[in-house]
Amino acid sequence: MSKKRTGHTSKPVWTKKDLLGLAGLSAKEILHILDAARRFELVPPVKAAGLAKACPPSVRRVPQTLTGQAVALLFFEPSTRTAASFRLAARRLGAEVIEIRTATSSVQKGETLLDTVRNIEAMGVRTFVIRHADAEVPHNIARNIESSVINGGDDANEHPTQALLDIYTLRQMKGRIKGLTVAIVGDILHSRVARSNLYGLKKLGAKVIFVGPPALLPKRFEKLGCEISRDLDAVFPQCDAVNMLRMQFERHGKKFFPTRKAQEEYKKKFQLNTRRLKRAKADILVMHPGPMNRGIEITDDVADGPRSVILRQVANGVAVRMAVLALLAKANR
Amino acid sequence: MSKKRTGHTSKPVWTKKDLLGLAGLSAKEILHILDAARRFELVPPVKAAGLAKACPPSVRRVPQTLTGQAVALLFFEPSTRTAASFRLAARRLGAEVIEIRTATSSVQKGETLLDTVRNIEAMGVRTFVIRHADAEVPHNIARNIESSVINGGDDANEHPTQALLDIYTLRQMKGRIKGLTVAIVGDILHSRVARSNLYGLKKLGAKVIFVGPPALLPKRFEKLGCEISRDLDAVFPQCDAVNMLRMQFERHGKKFFPTRKAQEEYKKKFQLNTRRLKRAKADILVMHPGPMNRGIEITDDVADGPRSVILRQVANGVAVRMAVLALLAKANR
Amino acid sequence: MSKKRTGHTSKPVWTKKDLLGLAGLSAKEILHILDAARRFELVPPVKAAGLAKACPPSVRRVPQTLTGQAVALLFFEPSTRTAASFRLAARRLGAEVIEIRTATSSVQKGETLLDTVRNIEAMGVRTFVIRHADAEVPHNIARNIESSVINGGDDANEHPTQALLDIYTLRQMKGRIKGLTVAIVGDILHSRVARSNLYGLKKLGAKVIFVGPPALLPKRFEKLGCEISRDLDAVFPQCDAVNMLRMQFERHGKKFFPTRKAQEEYKKKFQLNTRRLKRAKADILVMHPGPMNRGIEITDDVADGPRSVILRQVANGVAVRMAVLALLAKANR
Repeated sequence: MSKKRTGHTSKPVWTKKDLLGLAGLSAKEILHILDAARRFELVPPVKAAGLAKACPPSVRRVPQTLTGQAVALLFFEPSTRTAASFRLAARRLGAEVIEIRTATSSVQKGETLLDTVRNIEAMGVRTFVIRHADAEVPHNIARNIESSVINGGDDANEHPTQALLDIYTLRQMKGRIKGLTVAIVGDILHSRVARSNLYGLKKLGAKVIFVGPPALLPKRFEKLGCEISRDLDAVFPQCDAVNMLRMQFERHGKKFFPTRKAQEEYKKKFQLNTRRLKRAKADILVMHPGPMNRGIEITDDVADGPRSVILRQVANGVAVRMAVLALLAKANR
Repeated sequence: MSKKRTGHTSKPVWTKKDLLGLAGLSAKEILHILDAARRFELVPPVKAAGLAKACPPSVRRVPQTLTGQAVALLFFEPSTRTAASFRLAARRLGAEVIEIRTATSSVQKGETLLDTVRNIEAMGVRTFVIRHADAEVPHNIARNIESSVINGGDDANEHPTQALLDIYTLRQMKGRIKGLTVAIVGDILHSRVARSNLYGLKKLGAKVIFVGPPALLPKRFEKLGCEISRDLDAVFPQCDAVNMLRMQFERHGKKFFPTRKAQEEYKKKFQLNTRRLKRAKADILVMHPGPMNRGIEITDDVADGPRSVILRQVANGVAVRMAVLALLAKANR
Repeated sequence: MSKKRTGHTSKPVWTKKDLLGLAGLSAKEILHILDAARRFELVPPVKAAGLAKACPPSVRRVPQTLTGQAVALLFFEPSTRTAASFRLAARRLGAEVIEIRTATSSVQKGETLLDTVRNIEAMGVRTFVIRHADAEVPHNIARNIESSVINGGDDANEHPTQALLDIYTLRQMKGRIKGLTVAIVGDILHSRVARSNLYGLKKLGAKVIFVGPPALLPKRFEKLGCEISRDLDAVFPQCDAVNMLRMQFERHGKKFFPTRKAQEEYKKKFQLNTRRLKRAKADILVMHPGPMNRGIEITDDVADGPRSVILRQVANGVAVRMAVLALLAKANR
């Protein structure tokens, strides 16, 4: 209220009401979010690779700029970390959080999802984080309400805040994105994380290589502007970072890995283990969006090893989401 | 704390510890709640009919008079909007909210519901919002604890805060209640909303007409003091507002509408659509307690049209619930 | 912030990062928690036995020493009162609470529980309350993270905060623990409450008698250092307090009480009723950890009678948990 403001006369960089994906953002907009997230970083900002076990982050006190506001979490697919991360991000900014779960929602009573959202909006909620198995849903809702929509993951399409926290972590560790080579490995076909990372990294000047077997990485993915490879060992020496995707066994394990042998075959070719890591650059970063299937796409020693920034990604996720919530609230005031 | 108070020396209007229904309230008490809700209205107070899509409400900052207190939500039937509305109302006043769901509750372990409530009460919670399929439950609990009970909907008996927000919206738009004619249409038999509205509107001097087929509106309802009608078109020209009830298909669809034809028959007679709306007064208000079955009891063009105050009802619901929570807390101090 | 502190130069009594059980605590540490809980007691501190129906407690405003911090509740078994009690305790100290439920958690996606916890930890959460059917789980997790773990009940092993609130209530009512005789009655075999009470009470100098039939109280329990008895009536005259355990019918009703007759037999011998209570000391305290099976291990007249401190236990539970949360946060800073 009575705070003095530094005089902004130029047009603000961030003017969008929604965050639906990185495909629709400019490099400038992406960098603006990353810069805004800096002041929300958990402290201490860990210096070494990995998030030292002895030093879990603690929370920096920040201005409660969203006090009096409310954020609704509508997760129509299971989520622990993303929902928790958004909840903590919103609460740290002072916002109230309400969570609508499918099981108890009016959608059961025959109401359309849009009506549910517009009802919650009428109660004064101005930001909606939506995860849905149908990639159209967050976009449709965003078009039909005045409040902000954050895509919390829409089928295999986009998961923008996950990619932003990945890119944030890369930049934090490497000092830049431009010129980096990033391999994204595994189940590309079903991965919203792969797509959002590709869009964002390319805009910021990185080279992206998708790596996986034909069944999980059809050739058509080349059209998105990435290199594709079937041979992790071959691409490894040039990579500055490798992002190991989760094998989504619970969704399509039987379809793609009908036998135990097929699964072993996959691990032989694409699992990230210590032996394979030795062929990589010494300063390679090991990333994973989680939840991990330990012993499948990644081994314990690598997941918990010195090149892993997996928990650092998680820590940065809160800061990135705080930045997104704050920017959207400001743009949509 | 340091606020100056105007000296109240007379007995306060509101002295009840519970809000169980409108049947037991005086006109003066109802008006007192409505008046108290005014300062909690979301801003901007929309002037035109409907809640303009371009202008979702934002939250007015109000004194945190319930800071340090806690409100328990015990919903033993599914609820999205009522639970969310109470949660936001309580939080805006600074209260903590705890939600007890049947699935995880001790009731599973053989504990009586009253014991559950008394346990939560012993933890310092002083307000309970209870929704239960058994109309006796909220009353029974209220009689057995010293804390406040708000009936959040008890079977087909009462849903007082819904009726209060309906009446609040009517008064907000029409400037008065006395002398208005309100039709409540559809599944009266199973509707706690219809009963609570009837009790409240009559006390404030409105005329209420229940409209529906004999199966959903037995003749015995006349004893409650309302007019009943089978012909929506006939009563429409005299109505200042029409409140379209939700057809509760998920509860008794097969019993009352065994065939698709029966459903079509119902829509022909009782659906609110543009054609029918043309016979109404030009300034009629279209209300619905939600969740809507679009295309059944109401068509899209009417639900989203200029006479609809449906989302305004939702917005006012938060203000009305804030008023109720604040009044009960004050009376029960 | 600007508060003056009395100069503590000696080593603080509480230095542990976790609270996993009372078996591992010293008498000094237990007393330290009990003393710390005093300033969080709900007001008014009820003087008479029982928690007078006319006087539910209200909340004392306390310094928000955990503001900006977050507590995670991970309950992998159903819980109403313990989860609600921890939530209210954490919130009253200003902490944010996030609740992870099994049904929606990443554990479903094949993630290890430790990874889930370490992820939440990476988001800045520093305290975890964990209830799990496997007695190893809270200990395992505590060993593998830097954050604090509070055992919220691990199988039939320990439930330390329940025992602390029981002991707190005993001391509050009797003025001391040393020299008291406490009978713990019923399903000892499956009771984490019995074990934690035994460990705590013995360390503070009380005598503990376990009472129950051989099937629910095998002779080997004597090795834990308590007296065991099959005859409630015989031990009653010497008891200062009796703690009636819940008969966990939902877990093993059919195994231990195959017939209605077996259940009646149990009640005849071990049910606490008015007739039996007459043989006890006039100032005996009746306790129950809840949820109660009224009419099984305890009758209504006793549960709600003047010797019952059952709701007082619940009220004290919030204070004890506030003390635990505050002490762990301070030790783990």
